[in-house]
Amino acid sequence: MKKETDILVIGAGPVGLFTVFEAGLLGLKCTLIDNLDKVGGQCSELYPEKPIYDIPGVPNQTAQEHVDALMEQIKPFDFDLHLSQRVELIEVHSIEDGITTWLVKTNEGIECITKNIFIAAGAGSFEPRRPPNIEDPDKFLGNGVSYAVKSKDLYKDKNLFIFGGGDSALDWTVELAKIAKSVNLIHRRDQFRGAQHTEAQMRELVQSGEVNLMTPFQIDEIIGEDKVTGVALRNFDTKECITHDADELLFLFGLNKKLGPILEWELDLVSKKISVNTENFQTNRDGIFAVGDINDYPGKLDLILCGFHETTLAVQKAYQRNFPGERVPFGYTTSNTKLQRKLGVAE
Amino acid sequence: MKKETDILVIGAGPVGLFTVFEAGLLGLKCTLIDNLDKVGGQCSELYPEKPIYDIPGVPNQTAQEHVDALMEQIKPFDFDLHLSQRVELIEVHSIEDGITTWLVKTNEGIECITKNIFIAAGAGSFEPRRPPNIEDPDKFLGNGVSYAVKSKDLYKDKNLFIFGGGDSALDWTVELAKIAKSVNLIHRRDQFRGAQHTEAQMRELVQSGEVNLMTPFQIDEIIGEDKVTGVALRNFDTKECITHDADELLFLFGLNKKLGPILEWELDLVSKKISVNTENFQTNRDGIFAVGDINDYPGKLDLILCGFHETTLAVQKAYQRNFPGERVPFGYTTSNTKLQRKLGVAE
Ligand SMILES: Cc1cc2nc3c(=O)[nH]c(=O)nc-3n(C[C@H](O)[C@H](O)[C@H](O)COP(=O)(O)OP(=O)(O)OC[C@H]3O[C@@H](n4cnc5c(N)ncnc54)[C@H](O)[C@@H]3O)c2cc1C
Ligand SMILES: Cc1cc2nc3c(=O)[nH]c(=O)nc-3n(C[C@H](O)[C@H](O)[C@H](O)COP(=O)(O)OP(=O)(O)OC[C@H]3O[C@@H](n4cnc5c(N)ncnc54)[C@H](O)[C@@H]3O)c2cc1C
Repeated sequence: MKKETDILVIGAGPVGLFTVFEAGLLGLKCTLIDNLDKVGGQCSELYPEKPIYDIPGVPNQTAQEHVDALMEQIKPFDFDLHLSQRVELIEVHSIEDGITTWLVKTNEGIECITKNIFIAAGAGSFEPRRPPNIEDPDKFLGNGVSYAVKSKDLYKDKNLFIFGGGDSALDWTVELAKIAKSVNLIHRRDQFRGAQHTEAQMRELVQSGEVNLMTPFQIDEIIGEDKVTGVALRNFDTKECITHDADELLFLFGLNKKLGPILEWELDLVSKKISVNTENFQTNRDGIFAVGDINDYPGKLDLILCGFHETTLAVQKAYQRNFPGERVPFGYTTSNTKLQRKLGVAE
Repeated sequence: MKKETDILVIGAGPVGLFTVFEAGLLGLKCTLIDNLDKVGGQCSELYPEKPIYDIPGVPNQTAQEHVDALMEQIKPFDFDLHLSQRVELIEVHSIEDGITTWLVKTNEGIECITKNIFIAAGAGSFEPRRPPNIEDPDKFLGNGVSYAVKSKDLYKDKNLFIFGGGDSALDWTVELAKIAKSVNLIHRRDQFRGAQHTEAQMRELVQSGEVNLMTPFQIDEIIGEDKVTGVALRNFDTKECITHDADELLFLFGLNKKLGPILEWELDLVSKKISVNTENFQTNRDGIFAVGDINDYPGKLDLILCGFHETTLAVQKAYQRNFPGERVPFGYTTSNTKLQRKLGVAE
């Protein structure tokens, strides 16, 4: 079934999130889609614990605190949020009185019909980095290869090989050692980039024989027909190769940012950013807007506060597209009794 | 003595204040001038106790709390602040290598030399609205006519006539009923724009005979020679006129904002707003920028969050004017060790 929404927002980073608020003030409902398994975009994924000092009127907070505050702020407004899926395809659904309606599809089968697409995709969708020397590792996806832990149960009583040297690799090694049949941690050097505390835990498990640490090793080949049955590992120093029986390979090499499908949407681009006008941040295509880090215009700065401004102006135009000919009901939040009623501070 | 400053900011409203922060990040020092006796512009002058809900990442705060937070945020940076004076005059001081340097003068005799003037003057400087049908009511100023309550004592044991239908009129009616000999509230309709709660209080005082409410009435004439002795009021419906003895007339018709001297500075205006480009918010004059409510461009909204964006882009250009040919040192505050050293959180 195809759902209808006033604004389909691609990306639930800070700018996508604040769009819900500004749209809500005008009575417009948003549907947010993000490829990550959580909201907050770069803030939550790349530097949740680090400080941000230039959110105006907030002298000091961590990136995650900023995202939490935005979630609190948009609470009064109804919106749909679909995580862990990518918007793959957009196409013209219909054109009526010169106003384009779009059909939007995700890789998880969600289909939405909307007059307004807000691309708030930052520097693109975060995609797990693949092992660079394996051709098409994705053909084993769901059959012994994974890039993130969706459910721990998958690894229960399995021979598990974890690849990586950062926090995720260390965290999951420690965690999954409790339930897997065997846990093998493979990294190309004997140094880790994760928290010292977790590294110490991992090394204790190695001592006690609960984890098998293999360094300096790299994957050489995935063995199996439709399903992973084994893995070949190459020693970085000696160049020797050994094979092991394996049920599950978990690659935790971090995330890449990819524009991916956005490149196919016939949008005017300037060095991988989407060109917009500064009146309403619409792109070259009717009803498609780009806000936040993903857009470009003369003077553009990749700052969160700029994205807030951009999406605020863009929702004005979205309103006009939804209600052609009507005046946009602009007013100060200070005297917005509808909002205050939702907040429970006015009758 | 003429002082030099990197950026001379006219107006210490929220946008003027945040300019100090963004300029500070680039190592530029600001001098702020405001003709109010406090910082905060409209927020502090017009609605300090009222809530603002649309500062991104701050779900709920009063306008004064917002101003206080901005003051806290700009603390790490050195700046000069001159209150209770108006910028009256700007003139070209010199032009070198195509870059104009300006001389700025206030009505209190301060003179500044600067390459960058940021007009963050909101809707202009605040002036109380006069009764529209009375010729020169100001000749009674201090002699029975006032436009704001400077000291409650003035109205003690007086026959007081309060004019207006908003919060101020209601608030002062309730408050001054406690000390005046008589309080008469005059409004042209029997509907009020103020808080329901205060209106209810006022109507109780009318019931108990402590306040005399006169609607639909309007002032027709101020009676007196050098001092107010009476007032003529006209009934809006019947057109009848009646006179009363009166000691004090308090007109609370709100504030008018006046552009005043800004109109003389040869800036391109569109309906009393200063036209700017959206790349760096410069006006038609070299080195003069306009940010916040005072400016206009396609899509402009009079919101605080928009002013923050505007001044952030404008300081980039100010930097280039101060250091021609140099790259603007743009970076995230997250990794700005200079700032963090000032804040005492980095070595
Ligand atoms: C270390 C670091 C420090 C920083 N410090 C500051 C700072 O101090 N101040 C500041 O203002 N900024 C700072 N930034 C920049 C700031 O984080 C970005 O400007 C901000 O995150 C941009 O927000 P956004 O909503 O535009 O995009 P993002 O936060 O990038 O979010 C975009 C989201 O869209 C999703 N997405 C993309 N394509 C698709 C698709 N096809 N389908 C589904 N989802 C998709 C992505 O998965 C992502 O979650 C910093 C950045 C970093 C990395
Ligand atoms: C009741 C009310 C509720 C509001 N609610 C909201 C809201 O919820 N959200 C929102 O975003 N906005 C709201 N606003 C609007 C918001 O207050 C303004 O957008 C904001 O104050 C503009 O900031 P500014 O710094 O541009 O100018 P101002 O705040 O107007 O400050 C300009 C300052 O410049 C000074 N000045 C002018 N000319 C001169 C001169 N020649 N010399 C010296 N000083 C000068 C003035 O005295 C003034 O102090 C509201 C406004 C009102 C009145």
